[in-house]
Amino acid sequence: MDLYYLDIGGRGPGLVPRAEALIPVGDRGFLYGDGLFETMLMRGGEIPLLPLHLARMRASARALGIPFDPDRAGQACIDLVSAVRTAEASGGGNTAGAEFVVRLTLSRGPAGKRGYQPPPDPAPTTMVAVAPYQRPTGPLSAITASFRIHENSPLTAHKSLSALEKVLAKSEAAQSGCDEALLLNQAGRIAEGAATNLFIVRQGLWMTPPLTDGCLPGVMRQRILNLTHGLEWKITPADLFRCDGAYLTNAVQGCLPLAALDGRGLPWGSPPPFLHRLWTR
Amino acid sequence: MDLYYLDIGGRGPGLVPRAEALIPVGDRGFLYGDGLFETMLMRGGEIPLLPLHLARMRASARALGIPFDPDRAGQACIDLVSAVRTAEASGGGNTAGAEFVVRLTLSRGPAGKRGYQPPPDPAPTTMVAVAPYQRPTGPLSAITASFRIHENSPLTAHKSLSALEKVLAKSEAAQSGCDEALLLNQAGRIAEGAATNLFIVRQGLWMTPPLTDGCLPGVMRQRILNLTHGLEWKITPADLFRCDGAYLTNAVQGCLPLAALDGRGLPWGSPPPFLHRLWTR
Repeated sequence: MDLYYLDIGGRGPGLVPRAEALIPVGDRGFLYGDGLFETMLMRGGEIPLLPLHLARMRASARALGIPFDPDRAGQACIDLVSAVRTAEASGGGNTAGAEFVVRLTLSRGPAGKRGYQPPPDPAPTTMVAVAPYQRPTGPLSAITASFRIHENSPLTAHKSLSALEKVLAKSEAAQSGCDEALLLNQAGRIAEGAATNLFIVRQGLWMTPPLTDGCLPGVMRQRILNLTHGLEWKITPADLFRCDGAYLTNAVQGCLPLAALDGRGLPWGSPPPFLHRLWTR
Repeated sequence: MDLYYLDIGGRGPGLVPRAEALIPVGDRGFLYGDGLFETMLMRGGEIPLLPLHLARMRASARALGIPFDPDRAGQACIDLVSAVRTAEASGGGNTAGAEFVVRLTLSRGPAGKRGYQPPPDPAPTTMVAVAPYQRPTGPLSAITASFRIHENSPLTAHKSLSALEKVLAKSEAAQSGCDEALLLNQAGRIAEGAATNLFIVRQGLWMTPPLTDGCLPGVMRQRILNLTHGLEWKITPADLFRCDGAYLTNAVQGCLPLAALDGRGLPWGSPPPFLHRLWTR
């Protein structure tokens, strides 16, 4: 399990043990949160949604001006997963039924000479890590975060390394003994959870906030929109209490019922039957 | 010059050459921008405003729940500066009149087990780096950033590692061939520059946007407020064109005149006479 993939400016070193999974302190990911990441589910020795994750990172990297080669990053993920399977098997383990989280990180690489200003010819850093994962089964509880997010920020569409607001929101949730924090936007509507997208169901119709309300374009959000023929709909906190069910979704947890918000119970039922198809292609 | 101070979870290693200035890829500073930094001027072998920088980092670290020992961090800065002076002197250099930038970085340390959620007992990482500095003399040019910041974000008061918005603003400035990007808040007033605070002068009165308009509580901002007996005042872009002078300030550049915004010239004169006292105690 203690294996990482690391590529610093196109020079490798490739697969390394934990003790060698180190980056220079001058990396812009560390100095300025200048980069992106994806968090992916590995099951049955594969990352079923890998192409969707790579497509999202490519779109964001392009918007931020960070060079990114999806084929190379995808191969790095596959190589690491394969090495982990081999290592587990030789250790007597069995990864066939096990689930893991794979994190792909892309930073703009070494700092330039002018502070925040990116260097004209960045040499990105790519890192892939894998960790065992015990997928929660729900139902989940949430609080409403104490602060509102800015739906017009140039960062809302990107899963960036500048994630301290999400850290603070999750921290508030943990202090309340809850699983997640819902983030309202400036209009007072729900944008998303700190690490999840939100869906509500009414009369069989699946609805999730539009991207313009400030949510991340989640890989699982899009997958569920497709599977349910759902639609984008502006959602207020009050809507949660008059729907037939609310769900929090992301690429590793899948789709889990939300059963309480700020200590008030929400209507919820058993997971919907299409759940078993979330990670199949 | 290629010396760094590094402390990972209280275990050192202390002063190291560049090749050993490495952090684990699992550091929350790298994974989530979960930390803080200070950028300080070193001149005459000293960091004159060190106590002010340490006080600000302490306030922010407390707000974010990151353990921080200002005495220890201050000693690390002094040790590094001293080692750099010694190394320069033995190499025939002379640091007495030279200026350097010293960056102090504090991250929450290794990731916990639950993504964004901070571990209950963080073991922070402290890093100090130093680089030669050629202080610009101005006058400066600026653009207005294409996006607005969110003055109520829980991050505006902190100089955090989640700085990608500032990277994007600076990048816009560079693409326009300008030095700085001014950031408007949701109300359309000027909050700050990406890496500077703004002052305008009218009839001898120095004014800078209030913290509630979304600016960082800059060390140099406070110093200039004190030296000029200035005041906090809400400032619109139009105000820049009807003042007697505008200045961009930070702890390493000092106070430099802003001579153009979005290609339009601004009234500006020679730097004010109190400038020579900015870094004296």
